[in-house]
Amino acid sequence: MIRTIDWQDDSVVMLDQKALPEREIYVPCRDYDEVCAAIRDMTIRGAPAIGIAAAMGAALGFLRHGRGSKDHQRETVERVCGELAATRPTAANLFRALERVKERFRKCAEDDFESTAAALKEEAMHMLEEDIKANRVMGRLGCGLVPPGSAVLTHCNAGALATGGYGTALGIVRAAHEAGRNPRVFADETRPLLQGSRLTAWEMVKEGIPVTVITDSAAGSLMASGEVDLVLVGADRIAANGDTANKIGTYPLALLAHEHGIPFYVAAPTSTIDTATSTGKDIPIEERGALEVLTIAGRPTAPAVAKARNPAFDVTPHRLITAIITERGILREPFDRSIVELMENY
Amino acid sequence: MIRTIDWQDDSVVMLDQKALPEREIYVPCRDYDEVCAAIRDMTIRGAPAIGIAAAMGAALGFLRHGRGSKDHQRETVERVCGELAATRPTAANLFRALERVKERFRKCAEDDFESTAAALKEEAMHMLEEDIKANRVMGRLGCGLVPPGSAVLTHCNAGALATGGYGTALGIVRAAHEAGRNPRVFADETRPLLQGSRLTAWEMVKEGIPVTVITDSAAGSLMASGEVDLVLVGADRIAANGDTANKIGTYPLALLAHEHGIPFYVAAPTSTIDTATSTGKDIPIEERGALEVLTIAGRPTAPAVAKARNPAFDVTPHRLITAIITERGILREPFDRSIVELMENY
Repeated sequence: MIRTIDWQDDSVVMLDQKALPEREIYVPCRDYDEVCAAIRDMTIRGAPAIGIAAAMGAALGFLRHGRGSKDHQRETVERVCGELAATRPTAANLFRALERVKERFRKCAEDDFESTAAALKEEAMHMLEEDIKANRVMGRLGCGLVPPGSAVLTHCNAGALATGGYGTALGIVRAAHEAGRNPRVFADETRPLLQGSRLTAWEMVKEGIPVTVITDSAAGSLMASGEVDLVLVGADRIAANGDTANKIGTYPLALLAHEHGIPFYVAAPTSTIDTATSTGKDIPIEERGALEVLTIAGRPTAPAVAKARNPAFDVTPHRLITAIITERGILREPFDRSIVELMENY
Repeated sequence: MIRTIDWQDDSVVMLDQKALPEREIYVPCRDYDEVCAAIRDMTIRGAPAIGIAAAMGAALGFLRHGRGSKDHQRETVERVCGELAATRPTAANLFRALERVKERFRKCAEDDFESTAAALKEEAMHMLEEDIKANRVMGRLGCGLVPPGSAVLTHCNAGALATGGYGTALGIVRAAHEAGRNPRVFADETRPLLQGSRLTAWEMVKEGIPVTVITDSAAGSLMASGEVDLVLVGADRIAANGDTANKIGTYPLALLAHEHGIPFYVAAPTSTIDTATSTGKDIPIEERGALEVLTIAGRPTAPAVAKARNPAFDVTPHRLITAIITERGILREPFDRSIVELMENY
């Protein structure tokens, strides 16, 4: 099994997703600021994985800097969580994970530093385990949506690497594979950072699931020619009405799928749902640096003076989504109602 | 002015579009087989430019190998044109250009070898001049469709480099710029070969027209946020009903534009219209090698064993096209009728 992130010897250790598939390098973060940098530069990425990394980073920051009075401990938790929250703006899981760490800290009012530090680490490790478990449940639930022999189109990487393990969208593909349904995967390469060709293809090859890489532009052509049976993607934030932010390029896929009558599924744990965000318009969309677009592997692809825009996510309106697969059930329209019902019991 | 292709000292000289924007290299083709290779490996690309290159290649092949009896001359023309026609399957201009060379050869029945060779060269040079002239007329006609201060989204390169000069879609942008309408350009980078970031951005920078490069996936997000005023693309083949083959990724743009009420214009000379092709389904779509998708600048982006699909073009259904701008007028729905009317007088 692919280990995306773990806690070892008081370090947070991550598989460096920038180096894949050429090299499998594990990077230790010895303090929370290194975790911040790793989230920001996308050594680790994927909304659920970012949430886990942030929780571990908070626990690590507390361990390194929190020793002292309860006031000092509280200030440390606030400062560390604040810095971790500022790394990336879109993924809901990041903020939810940090809220959980703070909540756990509040419950440690009577505990000494060592016990509190242990509790925060335990909370982070619990999130990791929970996430893997949630992915396996999603896999089992979503598996039935993948007819035998299906060609599944996916975008970016919503696999083991984007989560604690197993994956959301790719977890469902894995579950279908394990159930003998023989899914095949079309992986959009996902410019600018190529998470599809670098990460999704790598995971599928490791798993022995047939994978074909395409440019992001080719998805429409394959749908038009009837070569795609369903689309399955992850999510970075799902608003209360079902509008879903995910990697840039997801929205065009949803529109194309709708046009061709192809089911479009979002797979995400409930930690990605943010009922405090009413609609997609309220989701903050990160704009990353121009160089990601203007260079590939460090080599310029455009004239030196050219400008670039680089929104990292787009919003898919809920009406284009066939269903949202969570670990607590499969949601369908009307999403505003099905989401409220799900989250009220959360 | 950018010289895409020319005839110099009995060679066909091309600006090497694979080397741009890093290096401006002019490559001489001394025989027709070198022209074939240059079309195949995309040293020269763009439907109108391919047509001109093929005509020049045919004239060059005749000059090198045609000396002899009329029968030998005829066999040479057939063989050379046959090989040039086999280089790439989609662009209509290629086949039309070769038909024109053969037609001109038939008119040389009474001429000696030297006069015939001169006539074929003259025909090719005439196509070059005609194409530039057609682009300037399209620019003048299309300019009125670009409101002052517009943000124009374009895909691939339909500029001077794709034609004899000036460009089709980018010719209209140039004309709008010359008319003081201050257009701004969003250039889709256009994976896998990056004609947008490498060629369109280079042309716009040279021209002093503001250009912003985006990944192909980001176009939907920009349209949804109201940042695109119109879409303007070229074409590789337009069927009798208006269905249009163009660089892979054009169809998703057209669907997105339609969804957001943004005009979607195709700019192409009448040499791109093929009334012998009834609908988009009848257009042969080239599938290029997997390595274009699985590597960038020679460096692998996916696991070594991953497969890829690489259709080079897709088909935009005519109902998504607001208008087709040709040098003989602006065509609108019903395209089947407006195209027949235009081509009957051609």
